Amino acid sequence: MGIEQISPALIIGTGLVGASIGCALSEAGVVVHLKDRDRSHAIVAAGRGAGRLEAPDPAQVKLVVVATPPAVIAQVVAASLEKYPNAVVTDVGSVKTRITSDLQALHINLRRYVGGHPMAGSHQSGPLTAAPELFVDRTWVISARPENPDWAVERTRQLALTCQARIRELDAAEHDRAVAEVSHFPQLVASLTAARLAQVPSEDLRLAGQGVRDVTRIAASDVTMWRQIVSANTAPIREQLVAMRDDLDHLIGALDDPRVVIDLLTRGNEGVRALPGKRGKRPDEVISVVVEIPDAPGALGQLFASITTNGVNIEDLSIEHDPDRPAGYLSIDVAPERADALRQLIREHGWGLRS
Amino acid sequence: MGIEQISPALIIGTGLVGASIGCALSEAGVVVHLKDRDRSHAIVAAGRGAGRLEAPDPAQVKLVVVATPPAVIAQVVAASLEKYPNAVVTDVGSVKTRITSDLQALHINLRRYVGGHPMAGSHQSGPLTAAPELFVDRTWVISARPENPDWAVERTRQLALTCQARIRELDAAEHDRAVAEVSHFPQLVASLTAARLAQVPSEDLRLAGQGVRDVTRIAASDVTMWRQIVSANTAPIREQLVAMRDDLDHLIGALDDPRVVIDLLTRGNEGVRALPGKRGKRPDEVISVVVEIPDAPGALGQLFASITTNGVNIEDLSIEHDPDRPAGYLSIDVAPERADALRQLIREHGWGLRS
Repeated sequence: MGIEQISPALIIGTGLVGASIGCALSEAGVVVHLKDRDRSHAIVAAGRGAGRLEAPDPAQVKLVVVATPPAVIAQVVAASLEKYPNAVVTDVGSVKTRITSDLQALHINLRRYVGGHPMAGSHQSGPLTAAPELFVDRTWVISARPENPDWAVERTRQLALTCQARIRELDAAEHDRAVAEVSHFPQLVASLTAARLAQVPSEDLRLAGQGVRDVTRIAASDVTMWRQIVSANTAPIREQLVAMRDDLDHLIGALDDPRVVIDLLTRGNEGVRALPGKRGKRPDEVISVVVEIPDAPGALGQLFASITTNGVNIEDLSIEHDPDRPAGYLSIDVAPERADALRQLIREHGWGLRS
Repeated sequence: MGIEQISPALIIGTGLVGASIGCALSEAGVVVHLKDRDRSHAIVAAGRGAGRLEAPDPAQVKLVVVATPPAVIAQVVAASLEKYPNAVVTDVGSVKTRITSDLQALHINLRRYVGGHPMAGSHQSGPLTAAPELFVDRTWVISARPENPDWAVERTRQLALTCQARIRELDAAEHDRAVAEVSHFPQLVASLTAARLAQVPSEDLRLAGQGVRDVTRIAASDVTMWRQIVSANTAPIREQLVAMRDDLDHLIGALDDPRVVIDLLTRGNEGVRALPGKRGKRPDEVISVVVEIPDAPGALGQLFASITTNGVNIEDLSIEHDPDRPAGYLSIDVAPERADALRQLIREHGWGLRS
């Protein structure tokens, strides 16, 4: 088993995701054919190394990846199942239940269709920024159904593995609820926030800093694609929006009450902490080395300089207070393999380590 | 006129902003004294090069920068005006009208107080990440009042210039409305969104990607500081929250109506575009070079490779379509001084430039 079970592959739709899959597969040695309604997209994707433009022999194709806009995925999957009789057909759509129900309504045998969703992308669209590493260490959801034979699921897994993604198997409904919570709802919040900015005097926008840019960054996303995603997943999205409106109503009514504001800000802190990892790292991937802050700034300056010149990459830093002593402690988070070097460095400077 | 008019300076409060100001001033040659209720913060700040821990001679101090938590700024400004009789006192508070009205209520002569607000910071707090370049090219609002003599305003300007910030003069009310729109409101939206995440199953959070992390990043900010900011600027913040609630209500009621969703997403696109610049650049700082996409992917691959090896930094790329022709155009945005080199490169490859 290996890439031969998915080679040759056909990618239909060469936007950012389709073209990036093509780049990753091609780099791994898979023969990739590209197809797009818009030939200039396919040309650009091919120019970035995503694959070739020639049509494949339909009988030979082992895997079809449907990476079209969401609204036409079901239709392209149905046509592909018919045209490529020996291929497993998968897709990259952000909503899974609707595609399956649309296909079931067409009374198509879905044994060879295995739903997928690589959780990577960008507010940029199109193949211009396609890159083979787009999926490395990202989650790739596979929504297999009982009727899928093992070999069909296996080819879909091989696709995700070749793109170096982390596979997560989830049924369609579970997937759709989760993406409503962590993707579709935040998308609409970003749009609601950015829509406000469109109403304020442009003079005022000159005071915008990084914070509002981050909050609204994804509001620059493709309107057509997101309209299609939202309309395919309205029920779980609405649940989140209603919950937020209740919080918002409460806040508006009690903006002068510090307890209410503190409660909201604290829950916001908790929500950010609940997101797994920090810059993609899990908490068990860093170690905290704690050093007593020397009561002489020159010494601390030397420590910072030593850390930098010794190539110890600091993941996080925080000051901890000791209520019984005037000076505090500095907690330095580093990768586990660097912790000993850092402890050594601190000892060499003669400072107090706290275990 | 130069740094001698603000040297020695005293910085009260050595969190991220105070310590970074200290670093920038020290680097420029200003003698900086540091003061913090929490000595370990002042020590860490001094260790990062922000200044010295010794107390200054009160009569000598020419500039006091109050960089304490918002709730105590007015009180520290009042005490500083009294203790440092020859100093101009400025602050870094995010809300300006409340400080002035609190000071006026104390019947203090405010000739030597000039409000300021450097628009830089981070969701991180404390002096550990302090850096002299925090304010470079960032906006620094100065809210002078008619009673301020020119020399007092001039010292405040010198402070901002020495930190390499861009000065913007705005009266306190204008400032407070603008920051409610572009800073305080987005902060609360981030908290509201992150507060939702704290309620969803942790399994679902494993599907979180970069989008939701961006939307909620600033929700990790300091609760105490933001509670103080919000309570000092409730009226203009409430206006934004109410406007968003109206949009949200409308969206919840019409989530199945594609026109409503398209309208929101489109307004969101407009809002992001309305933010000045792209990655900090103004639109007039890039030039678009447009090349016809050659109908052969190998050629395009060569072009990408050439652009990279020739060190032309691409600011943005987009595909433009020509309805009358099968292939499209590639629009490549570069810094003005690189445009000729790029055009030359394209001609060398024998491709069609569109002026």
